[in-house]
Amino acid sequence: MANDDYHKILLDESEIPTQWYNIVPDLPEPPPPALHPGTHEPAGPDDFAPLFPMELIMQEVSQERYIDIPGEVLDVLKLWRPSPLFRARRLEKLLDTPAKIFYKYEGVSPAGSHKPNTSVPQAYYNAKAGVKKLTTETGAGQWGSALAFACAQFDIECEVWQVAASYRQKPHRKTMMEIWGATVHPSPSEVTDFGRELLAQDADHPGSLGIAISEAVSQAAPYEDVRYALGSVLNHVLMHQTIIGEEALLQLAKVGETPDVLVGCTGGGSNFGGLAFPFLREKMAGKMNPTIRCVEPMACPTLTKGEYRYDFGDTAGMTPLMKMHTLGHSFIPEPIHAGGLRYHGMAPLVSHIYELGMVEAISIGQEECFAGALQFARAEGIVPAPEPTHAIAAAVREALACKESGEEKVILTALCGHGHLDLASYEKYLAGEIKDFDLSEDAISAAMAGVPTIAG
Amino acid sequence: MANDDYHKILLDESEIPTQWYNIVPDLPEPPPPALHPGTHEPAGPDDFAPLFPMELIMQEVSQERYIDIPGEVLDVLKLWRPSPLFRARRLEKLLDTPAKIFYKYEGVSPAGSHKPNTSVPQAYYNAKAGVKKLTTETGAGQWGSALAFACAQFDIECEVWQVAASYRQKPHRKTMMEIWGATVHPSPSEVTDFGRELLAQDADHPGSLGIAISEAVSQAAPYEDVRYALGSVLNHVLMHQTIIGEEALLQLAKVGETPDVLVGCTGGGSNFGGLAFPFLREKMAGKMNPTIRCVEPMACPTLTKGEYRYDFGDTAGMTPLMKMHTLGHSFIPEPIHAGGLRYHGMAPLVSHIYELGMVEAISIGQEECFAGALQFARAEGIVPAPEPTHAIAAAVREALACKESGEEKVILTALCGHGHLDLASYEKYLAGEIKDFDLSEDAISAAMAGVPTIAG
Repeated sequence: MANDDYHKILLDESEIPTQWYNIVPDLPEPPPPALHPGTHEPAGPDDFAPLFPMELIMQEVSQERYIDIPGEVLDVLKLWRPSPLFRARRLEKLLDTPAKIFYKYEGVSPAGSHKPNTSVPQAYYNAKAGVKKLTTETGAGQWGSALAFACAQFDIECEVWQVAASYRQKPHRKTMMEIWGATVHPSPSEVTDFGRELLAQDADHPGSLGIAISEAVSQAAPYEDVRYALGSVLNHVLMHQTIIGEEALLQLAKVGETPDVLVGCTGGGSNFGGLAFPFLREKMAGKMNPTIRCVEPMACPTLTKGEYRYDFGDTAGMTPLMKMHTLGHSFIPEPIHAGGLRYHGMAPLVSHIYELGMVEAISIGQEECFAGALQFARAEGIVPAPEPTHAIAAAVREALACKESGEEKVILTALCGHGHLDLASYEKYLAGEIKDFDLSEDAISAAMAGVPTIAG
Repeated sequence: MANDDYHKILLDESEIPTQWYNIVPDLPEPPPPALHPGTHEPAGPDDFAPLFPMELIMQEVSQERYIDIPGEVLDVLKLWRPSPLFRARRLEKLLDTPAKIFYKYEGVSPAGSHKPNTSVPQAYYNAKAGVKKLTTETGAGQWGSALAFACAQFDIECEVWQVAASYRQKPHRKTMMEIWGATVHPSPSEVTDFGRELLAQDADHPGSLGIAISEAVSQAAPYEDVRYALGSVLNHVLMHQTIIGEEALLQLAKVGETPDVLVGCTGGGSNFGGLAFPFLREKMAGKMNPTIRCVEPMACPTLTKGEYRYDFGDTAGMTPLMKMHTLGHSFIPEPIHAGGLRYHGMAPLVSHIYELGMVEAISIGQEECFAGALQFARAEGIVPAPEPTHAIAAAVREALACKESGEEKVILTALCGHGHLDLASYEKYLAGEIKDFDLSEDAISAAMAGVPTIAG
């Protein structure tokens, strides 16, 4: 980079990180283990074996700081990685701020978000283990399309249960999955016992993520050559996403910058962890000292209003118990448009480092998020997905604070996906139909009442 | 590029071309001039002045080989340019071909196609000339959204007339234009005399591109500080697009390749011209010898079945007469999904070089195009817009011919946009609802009967 006039910082393919970073061994305290849902004893690798191939299970519990990214995985990631790091100069100008705003853009992936960073290795390890088909659930469709794309690369089948309401309202994500060869069912579906049971009660059942998980799991666990794939929350998923932060570190180094503030949107936690963990490593090593902040929707404030305790990952209560910030596994968030942030819990690793005081958390309402997104789109061009509008709104807040204080802070965030398949939510915002939800304490208390009481 | 294992070839921002290439002075014969629609005399700069600012008119008739790209324009182009050149290794493997397939990807622009390459300079020159608002027409919405984005960068208003059928069926493109601050009307609209007249006859009038052009022009020409913008066909538009080919030349040089075959989809001709003209320059200079081929839809075969003669650019017959390959300005193509290729004529410059025998042309039906697009999406990840599926299908044909012959040809094409807002057409294809149209000679004859007879 010969001058200070750059708009984006690119890396050559030869500079792509070749290892994932596992933050676990670097933490001052180890994160609490997952528990078996029946015995409440720590879950061992065998408990996960019906769902995941052993190499992924070993990553889930690994104590190695770095794990090599297989060449076959890198070959696919290189279809779009390294992803660009942008300096949002036109947004800085619009806000009239002395701050420098950088954003790592993950919308360049074929599926349009950061999700393929983990769907590709997950499909790879499954294919290598002889698995012939992966099942999964999807809400709005981001994860389902990422997995469909990945399965096409390793010649394995992909079967997706998409929440029925979404399946009917947003047919385009389904089409995208089908283009990559996946089979997509509305959930509840006629394919599973559980689905048939629900459809018998209500032929127009709208479905839920919890139901879709149950259906996907039920079509994987009993079969030798079928496994299940999860797009967030778990340790190995967050680890696969650290390629985002590793690249961003290299890119900032090229222009001689280190972040003063890092903000990332958090749903299940994989986008946030992917960006933040490598920077946390540098911070723990005393090489930089950024404030690191999670940004969650006011309608689903897991970290800022949830409790830190053991809870199920799914609504039906079938998964291992994980210690995490939760609003209660029966909590159904209001239908805000950032579908990827509507999860009742938070990744155990993100929850743990939040408890340790290593990161901050705030929640932001939708109106402020869409307002920030419009400023961003008009200045920088890219139309963001609803999820990263939370990160953008937080970056805008910080940049405006710098305008007040005169501080020339370096702000780093991740734009984890484009909004090309989410324009209906912008249409609603422009029509004045998007309002903030003031989440009642009662709604949270009611859902928390269903969380099992577990010692420790 | 240290090795031969690359998937994409990137350029640093500092390598962005700083001049557009004007092919006109290099041609063995000058292209015939545009004619005034009333007098049939060659149209002079003043004839274009009610529609365009003088700097664009001067570019339209320029005899300079190179024109500097203003710094303010480069600053915006750098939001996404230089665009990547991909080597389609996974597609090559899928096709089992010895050919090397390269594609230049323009879907990285904020609007998702190559169109912002010209909308940005057009907005810039208009803003510089004191213009406060640009009007334009759009069909499916690619051009309208590109202009909306560009106007947001130079703080001028943008007013778009979108063909009513499209406006109603594809609300998402309208939303995208509104995100960037544009005002969008369905056409025919209540805003213009012509629109009101048509709506009085039929309140549900579906509209047409010709009608939308008439409305947009009628709201620009009479006003001092309003001008009109066109997204293809004209010389200056094709020239702005040559940045595509100039970058591709630099990128291929980095890996020591020259194309044996260049294929590009042609609608109005700007994507094709943008990629091909710099390579034609190299070919004329004896530096390489690629076969250069236009690919058009079987349902709108302007070059392969049209006549080369003077015709109007719009359906209503208001524009200057241009000598071009035309199916007749009253020709209404069947509703194939590649909206950007549904133009009755071809850019005069592309028509001229085709007449001179400098390029070839073929037409391909939709079924083959979508089949090729599916192979492409599954191998390379990116879901192409319907327009470049024609280029992809032609590249696949060529690669399969290489498989037969054993030739290791270098094939170059442009993927001029992504298909994220065109998934409905893929849905139809996957449902078996997309069929090829066998265009009748009678339909062409009928439309050609309306073309004015002009000597020369």
